[in-house]
Amino acid sequence: MASPGVSRLLEPRSVAVVGASGDAAKTAGRPVAYLRKHGFAGEIYPVNPKLDRIGELPCFPDVASVPGVPDVGIVLLGIERAHHAVRELAARGCGAAIVLASGYAEAGPQGEQRQAQLLEAAGSMRLLGPNTIGLVNLSANIVLSASGALETDHLPAGAIGVVSQSGGILGSLLSRAAARGIGLSKLVSTSNEADLELSDFVDALADDEATRVIALYIETIRHPAKFRDAALKALRAGKPVVAFKVGRSEAGARATVSHTGALAGTDRMYDALFRQLGVIRAQSFAELLDIPAALATGRVLRGRRVAILTSTGGAGALLSDSLGVGGFETPPPDAATVSSLCALETVGHAALDANPIDVTLAGLQPDFLRGVIRALLASARYDALAIVVGSSSLARPELMAGAIQDCLALSDKPVIAYVSPHAPDVAALLTRRGVPAFSAVEGCTAALAGLLRASQWRPGPVSDAGAPVLVDDLLAGMLDEVQSKHLFARFGVPAARETEVRTPRDAERAARELGGHVVLKILGTEFAHKSDVGGVAVDVAPEEIGLRLRAMADEVQARAGVRPSRFVVQERIRGGIELILGLRRDRLGAAVMLGMGGVAAELLDDTALRLLPPAGGLGREDAVAMARELKTWPLLDGFRGRPAADVEALADAIVAFSRMAAQLGDRLLEAEINPVLVLPRGQGVRAVDGLVVLADAPPAAQAVADETGGLACT
Amino acid sequence: MASPGVSRLLEPRSVAVVGASGDAAKTAGRPVAYLRKHGFAGEIYPVNPKLDRIGELPCFPDVASVPGVPDVGIVLLGIERAHHAVRELAARGCGAAIVLASGYAEAGPQGEQRQAQLLEAAGSMRLLGPNTIGLVNLSANIVLSASGALETDHLPAGAIGVVSQSGGILGSLLSRAAARGIGLSKLVSTSNEADLELSDFVDALADDEATRVIALYIETIRHPAKFRDAALKALRAGKPVVAFKVGRSEAGARATVSHTGALAGTDRMYDALFRQLGVIRAQSFAELLDIPAALATGRVLRGRRVAILTSTGGAGALLSDSLGVGGFETPPPDAATVSSLCALETVGHAALDANPIDVTLAGLQPDFLRGVIRALLASARYDALAIVVGSSSLARPELMAGAIQDCLALSDKPVIAYVSPHAPDVAALLTRRGVPAFSAVEGCTAALAGLLRASQWRPGPVSDAGAPVLVDDLLAGMLDEVQSKHLFARFGVPAARETEVRTPRDAERAARELGGHVVLKILGTEFAHKSDVGGVAVDVAPEEIGLRLRAMADEVQARAGVRPSRFVVQERIRGGIELILGLRRDRLGAAVMLGMGGVAAELLDDTALRLLPPAGGLGREDAVAMARELKTWPLLDGFRGRPAADVEALADAIVAFSRMAAQLGDRLLEAEINPVLVLPRGQGVRAVDGLVVLADAPPAAQAVADETGGLACT
Repeated sequence: MASPGVSRLLEPRSVAVVGASGDAAKTAGRPVAYLRKHGFAGEIYPVNPKLDRIGELPCFPDVASVPGVPDVGIVLLGIERAHHAVRELAARGCGAAIVLASGYAEAGPQGEQRQAQLLEAAGSMRLLGPNTIGLVNLSANIVLSASGALETDHLPAGAIGVVSQSGGILGSLLSRAAARGIGLSKLVSTSNEADLELSDFVDALADDEATRVIALYIETIRHPAKFRDAALKALRAGKPVVAFKVGRSEAGARATVSHTGALAGTDRMYDALFRQLGVIRAQSFAELLDIPAALATGRVLRGRRVAILTSTGGAGALLSDSLGVGGFETPPPDAATVSSLCALETVGHAALDANPIDVTLAGLQPDFLRGVIRALLASARYDALAIVVGSSSLARPELMAGAIQDCLALSDKPVIAYVSPHAPDVAALLTRRGVPAFSAVEGCTAALAGLLRASQWRPGPVSDAGAPVLVDDLLAGMLDEVQSKHLFARFGVPAARETEVRTPRDAERAARELGGHVVLKILGTEFAHKSDVGGVAVDVAPEEIGLRLRAMADEVQARAGVRPSRFVVQERIRGGIELILGLRRDRLGAAVMLGMGGVAAELLDDTALRLLPPAGGLGREDAVAMARELKTWPLLDGFRGRPAADVEALADAIVAFSRMAAQLGDRLLEAEINPVLVLPRGQGVRAVDGLVVLADAPPAAQAVADETGGLACT
Repeated sequence: MASPGVSRLLEPRSVAVVGASGDAAKTAGRPVAYLRKHGFAGEIYPVNPKLDRIGELPCFPDVASVPGVPDVGIVLLGIERAHHAVRELAARGCGAAIVLASGYAEAGPQGEQRQAQLLEAAGSMRLLGPNTIGLVNLSANIVLSASGALETDHLPAGAIGVVSQSGGILGSLLSRAAARGIGLSKLVSTSNEADLELSDFVDALADDEATRVIALYIETIRHPAKFRDAALKALRAGKPVVAFKVGRSEAGARATVSHTGALAGTDRMYDALFRQLGVIRAQSFAELLDIPAALATGRVLRGRRVAILTSTGGAGALLSDSLGVGGFETPPPDAATVSSLCALETVGHAALDANPIDVTLAGLQPDFLRGVIRALLASARYDALAIVVGSSSLARPELMAGAIQDCLALSDKPVIAYVSPHAPDVAALLTRRGVPAFSAVEGCTAALAGLLRASQWRPGPVSDAGAPVLVDDLLAGMLDEVQSKHLFARFGVPAARETEVRTPRDAERAARELGGHVVLKILGTEFAHKSDVGGVAVDVAPEEIGLRLRAMADEVQARAGVRPSRFVVQERIRGGIELILGLRRDRLGAAVMLGMGGVAAELLDDTALRLLPPAGGLGREDAVAMARELKTWPLLDGFRGRPAADVEALADAIVAFSRMAAQLGDRLLEAEINPVLVLPRGQGVRAVDGLVVLADAPPAAQAVADETGGLACT
């Protein structure tokens, strides 16, 4: 259940408005005006020492004089007086304060200090903001906000709960949803999140009966673990979560920092987080309404085959094209469907054996339209129906909307509409009648993609930390190549066979033991890039290795200024595929990164990323999914008659690596196997080179912040 | 100048409407009603034997009875009677007929035949359609269309000329533009293009004084060379051309074929064509209005640095993010700009030293707003200004629009607006006042990107076919590897040194002449994949080559069933970078394709494409641009301390290859160098392997259609 403080904030029976103005044109006049305009049934206590009344409501000189204990206090005062009001509200036992003033954490170090003071003044009272525009509970006609978007009379209530970290964006979503006929349940602007934050409201909306879909406008996730719990709670309750995250570009990330005072993680980490949780990512701001509008219908998409019903060929082709780009199929109707359709035809020009199914002007006859929709919804060939609304339908929108609506109960397949001409009222009408309508074909495609994601969601694969591995002997600092591979091997990632040597004679013996041509490398953490200083020889015969070792020592000394004293003699492995397996850290947590090796793949950034779940390492299924996510996956899968690679062993290695990261936790500052060689099926993988950096003990908070802060803006 | 027929169609002084109905609610009643409603000043001749009058207009029983020679005849009859009407109009000397009936080429082979008959009936009279919705000349209040979108009273005239290959889409563009305050000059729906087509109207709009920007909705380009000429004419006249092309996905391509009866080329070829011409490609249907709206202002974008002026932080960050994703920069103001801004500040909370420049509620004061806009337009730091309109500005839109408009004359830098709440009227007001306004941040980004493309346009690099190379000796059919490389070499692409041999002794002699280890390959067009049958050995010493040749012959015979009699002994080249250089053919023409070699690059589809210009081969500048366009370009450019590759020589090879393709024309069915090895700078390139297929003589039309038809849907 949501915390009692949050419930009291979302559904107050009494509201104090501190600093209320009698002028409804001013920001400070809006909350009282909006509360009344939108039908708040509880008590309103305006507080303003300069006024006796606001409209019919008596006005109180201070919070102490208010006759009852308010559930919520809206604080409209400037930053100078807001603290006092918050302290007074807390003293009266008020449940939560909403603070609109700005000049806090978003305004630099001094503002951060003020924010801490404000939080201290709130004591055990919950706090929304500061710098917030408030919240709106449309399910219960409770408006606790100064957003100008509330000027409108018509705010359709519905099933979508919205949390926005920006107040201005909340107003934008509110007015855009209203214009499109999309009904919302609750909207909350969390802004600076001094106390209550994103996850608190996701958690509350998961419990909220009126909410069936949750839409999030995210600038930063301050508490990833809490967010994970809240999102999973919502998803397990059957409520899809859709998120738009600003800050994909460096410019956006900078603007966001200056807006909220909080650094975000890198965009790819957010992508991984959302994907792992099953949160549907909106790729544009518009999609943050498009996708929830479709999900709010509760209809289920079981596959990718879409029937397009149109009366105008051009728009049908446009929609078809967008669906195709988005990975959907638009197959022609099967024989049974064609014969159902032809049985209906009375006019003669309709193209009923192709998809788009072009009914031309016959689409204006409601009975014919009903018949076609019924046949397409009943067809085993299709998983969804998309209807194109052309100019010809605009004259009688009610009739068309009614005909479509009549058929909805016959099937739980999704039905959506694309409105080709400018006709926002027709689109809103359709949306209100249960047929989400879009004015962009990309919106249709995003909505169907969201439905498919939601229909396919199931709880993530089980993961655990694996059997504990003894690591008490590890020392802090950077491990050399051999030590790093020993550590990987302890957790279950096999290394190439190798021997550490110091003399030419030892090198020769090691090479003979390995049984043929070998690789010779210098060893030592003082050499960052071994090849750059001449410290690697890849094809050395045992009889020449002694000379090569001396020559290598000379060359490295000349180029790096340090004479190497230690070397590795390593078996030479042929025929495998090189990958990189590494650890990435960021404000969102630690993640395992798998990348295809080779320079081309690196330049094309062919990598897959998974955050470590709180329970421990990655699940095996996730490890296989990472490999399949690589664009160059065919290389591992026996591309063009090559031998298929040992993907099973690669998955084992990914799981093992992730368990190492989970068990070592913050002690593991850096870890990378580069390359890990994946041999043909049945022959396993080998760590060929690698690097580990360990902290001595759990590092100080500051050190982590510095370390990850540097990454956050890259 | 545009052809007189087209001018007469676009600006008729008299119009016959054949099959006109008196009921304005019917399609056949609309053209007369719309002509009058939108203020046509010329003569209207309704033709309908069943009516005496339509409103105040006398109605004529047939075309022969019409009192004057109509410039245009709109034919509203069904397919059965349309031919007769067209013949009658032609006989009267009418300039052009617009035929709305469907059932022609879009309806299969029988329809194609009907379309040919219709064209024959038109004789020397021009024909628009059939299956068209007509055209609209907003510059002169002439409406020759039955589109329901013309029901509206307000159709703002402006500078954007639109040609759409779909009639329904024309109505959609018309209504959407009107709602957004975007003014259009002409709109034409060409549909089946039996006679007049896309390029005819691009050509006419290039001459049209009212048109400053051309927007195209394209399903297929039937005559690429004509399109090229028309587009270049428009661009040279200073009129940017923006195109949206449907059919990016297979599903879309299929839907388009069934809609227009015409196969399109592949999407990548269109991309290459647009890029080479300087046509700006709209990536979504919305962008087909977004980009022209910005271009119609005539303002010039000289760089990528955008100032964002906002009164609401969240929307500012959202816009910043989208601009960043689109490659724009949003740097903070420089010291001079900050001091200009601070001199204006009266309120205290505005953030004037960051970008977005957040003026908070001070943005509601027109004088302050004017001052800030002036300072930002004058700032040397910025190339453009994007203004965020938040909820707070909605109360006084005229005031804000006026303040912005006052400043426009001070600079020719682009000024655009992002309207954050739902406020279409405010957006339309701004657009009408010269500040293109967008309700999606992606629209802002696309508009600025379009402005940048247009500002950077200059006539393409000069190309020519090069000195003629004698090719009379070439025989038809598939050339083997050695012959292919000889052909490439004649045009200037150097090949690896190699000798064709038949015996072990010759092989050994050839290897010794090449001076060391060599490559040995079987030779003959009967072996498609040499390596797959054991026909390649890459590192062979002269002393062992005899034995290797025999063993290879045995292995190939066992695996391929044919004993090879010819072999190539080739120098072994180390240290180059492998690329692929090939010819691609498609309905749009012939193109040169450059791709990075290696399987990873192939899986990641790292290629660049250029269509051959009509004058001959590619220009050198274009060849270098192709190499730079590869995502793996850094590999050629000395990535991580590697030697830089000989890009000059690669560019020479691309030009040479393209000249070969230009000179051989249709005789060259296939050509590919795979790999072409690019050596370190100063050392040139080498064709290592290759393939050529030649036709005997210019191939029959049918053969070309078959050959390219297969490619069109891949």
